[in-house]
Amino acid sequence: MRPRAGTVTAQAVEAAARLLDGVAVRTPMLSSPLLDAELGVRVAAKAENLQRTGAFKFRGAYHHVATLPPDARMGGVIGASSGNHAQALALAARLLGTRATVVIPHDVPLAKLDAIRRTGATVATYRRGVDDRDALVAELAAMHGLAVVPSADSVPVMAGAGTVAAEILRDAPDVDTLLVPLGGGGLAAGCATYVKAVKPGTRVIGVEPAGADDTRRSLLRGRRVSIPAPRTIADGLTHTTPSAGPFKVNRRLLDDVLVVDDHAIAEAVRLCFRHLHVVVEPSGATAMAALLGGALGGDPGRTAVVLSGGNVDWGTFRTMMEADGMGSVAAGPFDVRLAGALG
Amino acid sequence: MRPRAGTVTAQAVEAAARLLDGVAVRTPMLSSPLLDAELGVRVAAKAENLQRTGAFKFRGAYHHVATLPPDARMGGVIGASSGNHAQALALAARLLGTRATVVIPHDVPLAKLDAIRRTGATVATYRRGVDDRDALVAELAAMHGLAVVPSADSVPVMAGAGTVAAEILRDAPDVDTLLVPLGGGGLAAGCATYVKAVKPGTRVIGVEPAGADDTRRSLLRGRRVSIPAPRTIADGLTHTTPSAGPFKVNRRLLDDVLVVDDHAIAEAVRLCFRHLHVVVEPSGATAMAALLGGALGGDPGRTAVVLSGGNVDWGTFRTMMEADGMGSVAAGPFDVRLAGALG
Repeated sequence: MRPRAGTVTAQAVEAAARLLDGVAVRTPMLSSPLLDAELGVRVAAKAENLQRTGAFKFRGAYHHVATLPPDARMGGVIGASSGNHAQALALAARLLGTRATVVIPHDVPLAKLDAIRRTGATVATYRRGVDDRDALVAELAAMHGLAVVPSADSVPVMAGAGTVAAEILRDAPDVDTLLVPLGGGGLAAGCATYVKAVKPGTRVIGVEPAGADDTRRSLLRGRRVSIPAPRTIADGLTHTTPSAGPFKVNRRLLDDVLVVDDHAIAEAVRLCFRHLHVVVEPSGATAMAALLGGALGGDPGRTAVVLSGGNVDWGTFRTMMEADGMGSVAAGPFDVRLAGALG
Repeated sequence: MRPRAGTVTAQAVEAAARLLDGVAVRTPMLSSPLLDAELGVRVAAKAENLQRTGAFKFRGAYHHVATLPPDARMGGVIGASSGNHAQALALAARLLGTRATVVIPHDVPLAKLDAIRRTGATVATYRRGVDDRDALVAELAAMHGLAVVPSADSVPVMAGAGTVAAEILRDAPDVDTLLVPLGGGGLAAGCATYVKAVKPGTRVIGVEPAGADDTRRSLLRGRRVSIPAPRTIADGLTHTTPSAGPFKVNRRLLDDVLVVDDHAIAEAVRLCFRHLHVVVEPSGATAMAALLGGALGGDPGRTAVVLSGGNVDWGTFRTMMEADGMGSVAAGPFDVRLAGALG
């Protein structure tokens, strides 16, 4: 089954919000005067690391599965992911009374594999860099009559992700700048769609890890380009090319795309620990990282950042907290590299 | 100025909730199927570690200051605390346009001292075990005409704390058992007051750290007793005797008081990291710790626990996460000591 056609709209986001009401966690906006003082910015953080299965991904996966025609839904769903989308899809399927098959790398950590299996999902594995993941998904979907749920390139998935922005504007209606982590692009596309329809004066900026800036490079070239396999601590954002559907939206609506390095990401993780008392995974901290070093360019005004996920093992977390234990995150002053891609 | 007279009521809690609406964070109830599976309990955690200044204390401090007669409020407020109440009072005063003086131990960590100073509070220090803290507070209050804001023994402080339970019952109306950390007793008293008025079938249980079980011992003796200076990782709950006002409420309304050791507290901190993606301080994890080892006695049914605070430095947090690096928290199977004090 192909992702449904059409374009994500603010109305679709509002419909998704109604459907997710009482199902998704209404995550809080967190702030701290001390954090503001450290950053020199008035910032509130949308804590999607506290979402079910630990990431905003639950919103899109649930919305997609819930809006499938009943016969398609009951036939089972399938999705591929090395991380948060797999867990989200597994839970969404269970809540909606159907079965999920998730296609994950063969070397996924045992803890994550166990978490997915406990949710009742069927697990298929592929070898990174050897097997063609998308072909495997298509084959399994055809063989078993499963509906494919993409991690980003689907209108209902983007609409589900856009409910993050809808909640932000309800809780912080006077926000001037919204920063969101940018991987496949579904979160940025859903959020930008809603914000630009409802409060177009608000800037929406995507943030990519240095070395994984496939969207920034694609925007600069005016078309989707592929980059070499990224190397960054932000393992959830290591896409080599933007998803097609989200890219169409993002090239039209994003005000800018910024790039942050692993130093800044680790520092953002520390700020979240110290001032907000939340555990954020590296990929989830990129938007906050863009506020470091004052390099956003001028005063961003009232700023909201999305903390998009919290699924991080203790070893990685400790490394980020202690910084000089990690190869690419040296101790010392943080060298935040930011690039205004579109300005 | 003396704490105001009277008894905390459900109506007072509701009035506090109206006053705190839009000021305090509406903290989420967090849950995870994997956490439930590990504990063998259906549990939801009220994440008050995400409250302003990182602890539920903000609710009571703000409510007390806001309901002072205007002239008393504008004359300034004073409170004593080694931790969360000081930070809460400092912020509450600033938000309400008055000045706070906080009396803290002279050896408080610099980071915490700095956090309090940045909020604009005046800081007075006392020497632990040498100076009479309460006498110092009374002297400063008399000298400068300040209103004393107790950390627990005040009707508006207890009513503010009770709004935690009001929100829990709104978000989880079918809760069978509510577990709350027990220090001075204000949180337990406020929550028990509200729950027993609105949904009396719900069990309300306080949880103390082993060695700091002044309330449990006082309940067993039928009057407030003093215990030797406690030694526990839960530094926010090291009271040597229960506060008088909260104790009157708690002896009437609590269903039980349980005791947990540092092993269980550290394991609860780890569970919160792994499954809920939040940072909880040791004192804030005691209620969750009471669910370990299945020692609650029978099936608690749908269970809510309050994660009461998140102010913990990295060194302490890492020690709890890694357990065998801490003297009294050895590696290995956790020996949860629970005692039904009243049953």
